Amino acid sequence: MTGGTLVTGAAGFVGSWLVPALQAAGERVIGAGLPGSSPQRPPDEWVELDLLDFARLRRMLSDKRPDRIVHLAALASPVLAAREPLAALRSNYRIVDGLLRAARDGAPDARLLLVSSGEVYGYRPPHSPPHAETGPTNPHTLYAATRVAAERRAQLAQARDGLDVVLVRPFNHTGPGRGRDYAESSFARQLARIERGRQAPRLRVGNLEARRDYSDVRDVVEAYRLLLERAESGGVYNVASGRARSLRSVMEHLIQSSTVRPEVTVDPELYRPHADDRTESCGDPRRLRELGWSPRYALEDTLDELLDDWRSRG
Amino acid sequence: MTGGTLVTGAAGFVGSWLVPALQAAGERVIGAGLPGSSPQRPPDEWVELDLLDFARLRRMLSDKRPDRIVHLAALASPVLAAREPLAALRSNYRIVDGLLRAARDGAPDARLLLVSSGEVYGYRPPHSPPHAETGPTNPHTLYAATRVAAERRAQLAQARDGLDVVLVRPFNHTGPGRGRDYAESSFARQLARIERGRQAPRLRVGNLEARRDYSDVRDVVEAYRLLLERAESGGVYNVASGRARSLRSVMEHLIQSSTVRPEVTVDPELYRPHADDRTESCGDPRRLRELGWSPRYALEDTLDELLDDWRSRG
Repeated sequence: MTGGTLVTGAAGFVGSWLVPALQAAGERVIGAGLPGSSPQRPPDEWVELDLLDFARLRRMLSDKRPDRIVHLAALASPVLAAREPLAALRSNYRIVDGLLRAARDGAPDARLLLVSSGEVYGYRPPHSPPHAETGPTNPHTLYAATRVAAERRAQLAQARDGLDVVLVRPFNHTGPGRGRDYAESSFARQLARIERGRQAPRLRVGNLEARRDYSDVRDVVEAYRLLLERAESGGVYNVASGRARSLRSVMEHLIQSSTVRPEVTVDPELYRPHADDRTESCGDPRRLRELGWSPRYALEDTLDELLDDWRSRG
Repeated sequence: MTGGTLVTGAAGFVGSWLVPALQAAGERVIGAGLPGSSPQRPPDEWVELDLLDFARLRRMLSDKRPDRIVHLAALASPVLAAREPLAALRSNYRIVDGLLRAARDGAPDARLLLVSSGEVYGYRPPHSPPHAETGPTNPHTLYAATRVAAERRAQLAQARDGLDVVLVRPFNHTGPGRGRDYAESSFARQLARIERGRQAPRLRVGNLEARRDYSDVRDVVEAYRLLLERAESGGVYNVASGRARSLRSVMEHLIQSSTVRPEVTVDPELYRPHADDRTESCGDPRRLRELGWSPRYALEDTLDELLDDWRSRG
């Protein structure tokens, strides 16, 4: 059987939400994940594949001939990327390069939705206007540099090889299932542990003045689904709320929703590397809204669900 | 007056050799450098310009309308780039992005020689075959990632905006005037200081097993001159000797050429970050040789001149 939508990173956080969302819309989904991983939501077909095995990747694309590819697989945490630059470069640049070569040879007509990051714009002083897609990229971290390199590589594949590439730049997103390496999820996890007496009543946090643009992961996967249908070929789309929130306000909401009132300890080790005093990252979602996207989740509700999720993860 | 060849980074190490080489070939050279810098070899016209000032850069290109642009300005040391990632991203990616936008608007017919780096290929186990331009890029350092991002951006400008871009990937190069942040130059500097009794007879070195492909800076600028004339538009060209030498052999030659026999102290702080056990970087110069390039300098002579140069810098 050929055709359908291939989702890489299908066993990851966003993949776990995207796979059922596509299925609910009537799509046949082929999920790909690392050998040994297993999808939380079963796709119609499951493929175990190390994306760095370019020969196998090429064969897989030639065999399956997907109509659409959503490339989620990445080392998606700027903090982890700074700790493991080689792994970040392999995951975020080298694999995109290999995927584009394999798609050119094995699935040249597929629409390829390449998930990049709002981090490519860099940081600005608080209360700057949101980043529009027409503005310059200005990577401030190794993570952002790997994403910029991959974006340019993908645009080159569009311009030179005629691939149908859509670039998407999600800003921060979260929700039930988010891993602990992201600030808001770390706050929620710690609060759930403090509630159970499994952690002393001290909340360890990084730079609370950082201002980020948060969306619910379910609104993000709805954006990806829409973009597969409606995006302009070669287009670049932010996925963002358009509103920056300080991590302090995120933390305060979570503390209010918890049953505890811990002491807050700022740990400079948790600061994002090289963010200096420009701490805001906020995206303009106008282009995406023009395609009909409209977010459904309020951040406060998402954070409450995230806290409940950590309580239930035990 | 319009036309001529614009050289950015004209006051730097390679610029100091390129400017007179172009002039000797009958070219009119406009040199650009940071405000406060001054060219060691005076170009026909000198422009002080912060390349991050994109409005001024655009005006300058529209005014001067150069026929050719050689973009040398960069943070060109992988070691410094690892220490100052933000500066490296600004210098090596953001400025290229701005330069390509400015060229599109102000000098769309200029040939643009963008100097990248052999580092984009990453490192391999010793005695691997040299890297050819057709092989994949595999950045192992932040420095290499900034270069890959810039290369893809430039290829996009070629494919999408119709700019005449040539990419050049020099491997290691050295010669009189080389700064002290490069291993071979640091060795030569230390030996000159030990000879004068200004440093205790201990040579501080990094990873001596690293294997690099060295050319003389004069052969490198001759390659750039040739590429401006003869390169295929959109082409990518290594500048390399095709032969990997261990830093140990480079050090041993310099010690032999010096009048001292210092103790050698290996300092892991001087190791290139994230190079792990794949230590070789070596380029295949075939494409460049097919254009008529033939290097004139033997590495041993270059190293002796570098040592003499440090002796005379006092």
